[in-house]
Amino acid sequence: MSNFIENANWRYATKKFDTTKKVSEKDLATLKEAIRLSASSFGLQPYKVILVENPELRAKLQSASWGQAQIVEASHLVVFANITNFSEQHVDEYFDNLTTTREIQMEAVQGYKDFVKNFINTLPVDVKNIWTSKQTYIALSNLLNAAAELKIDVTPMEGFEPQKYNEILGLNELGLNASLVATIGYRHEEDGLQHLKKVRKSEKELFLTL
Amino acid sequence: MSNFIENANWRYATKKFDTTKKVSEKDLATLKEAIRLSASSFGLQPYKVILVENPELRAKLQSASWGQAQIVEASHLVVFANITNFSEQHVDEYFDNLTTTREIQMEAVQGYKDFVKNFINTLPVDVKNIWTSKQTYIALSNLLNAAAELKIDVTPMEGFEPQKYNEILGLNELGLNASLVATIGYRHEEDGLQHLKKVRKSEKELFLTL
Repeated sequence: MSNFIENANWRYATKKFDTTKKVSEKDLATLKEAIRLSASSFGLQPYKVILVENPELRAKLQSASWGQAQIVEASHLVVFANITNFSEQHVDEYFDNLTTTREIQMEAVQGYKDFVKNFINTLPVDVKNIWTSKQTYIALSNLLNAAAELKIDVTPMEGFEPQKYNEILGLNELGLNASLVATIGYRHEEDGLQHLKKVRKSEKELFLTL
Repeated sequence: MSNFIENANWRYATKKFDTTKKVSEKDLATLKEAIRLSASSFGLQPYKVILVENPELRAKLQSASWGQAQIVEASHLVVFANITNFSEQHVDEYFDNLTTTREIQMEAVQGYKDFVKNFINTLPVDVKNIWTSKQTYIALSNLLNAAAELKIDVTPMEGFEPQKYNEILGLNELGLNASLVATIGYRHEEDGLQHLKKVRKSEKELFLTL
């Protein structure tokens, strides 16, 4: 069997973490690299990934997350925050990175750069923010899949109040918005959910051939 | 090194596919299973995944995809289509599946079911459609990661005209909307992009610790 499929079957949205187990620095580095390598629209990675380590912040975020215990009990807490009002400056930064990484002159990609700028300039701000938010879902999925390979549990969460997160973490001032949350750690042996059968649509229900 | 990281470094958004190579039925089944196992909000999988095999449809879709050649040249074409106006009926279907899969009575999950229905009923239609669309990005990422393990190339695409896709594939009538496209196959040896260094934000640029 494919490792991917085996790992995907192993994972589940953990609700109760073992508070005595911490993800090692080495594994954390692998998870961050998995996030960093995520695909995104034009490769722009229009978001920041915030590791919340401060216990007081985590306690405040729990109140903004329907009180869910994993916010404070998991080994690590990650907030994927999309860039709001993604601008030409962000595109410039990407192309600076591209030309440096690939050791080419800007002239060689100027046409493409103009195309990308034109694309983002045609989007109204609210549409642009939805677009940047969507990209965080790809990064989240990379985290889920990479963690499962390491037998590390991750709970993806949309069940939180973004505006409160933005206030608590000072994201507005950074031009960011809390899009997704993930708690990372190790399942508690008492978390009964781990023993339940995974519920998924059948292949027949999910797929359509045209 | 983690296999995940190795595979993520191997993949890239392929522009030129080798038209002589087809993804086998066995590998396609693995990719479909990877998509099927994707995480989603409440586990609802609010989308369909469409395999477009009809060559005439693929030709029409190319015109609705900025003319990009991979739409017709790749071995397989997949359209992730989110459910529009996700309704209580969809929630009922999920819970029917859940109770059957886990062999439990509906009474045992009635409170949770009411909670999910209440959640979706509070969302305006446009917000609900954004929410279902976002879930397709997780499924896309599963496809990317599972394919990379099999050394199969996938090009994720937002560069297409959703309304034209909806018309060509008859998605409106099915209560669906084209959210994301992926072309699947094998990179052509002449695709120069495969030799370029991957461009990603540095760890310092992407991550923030609070």
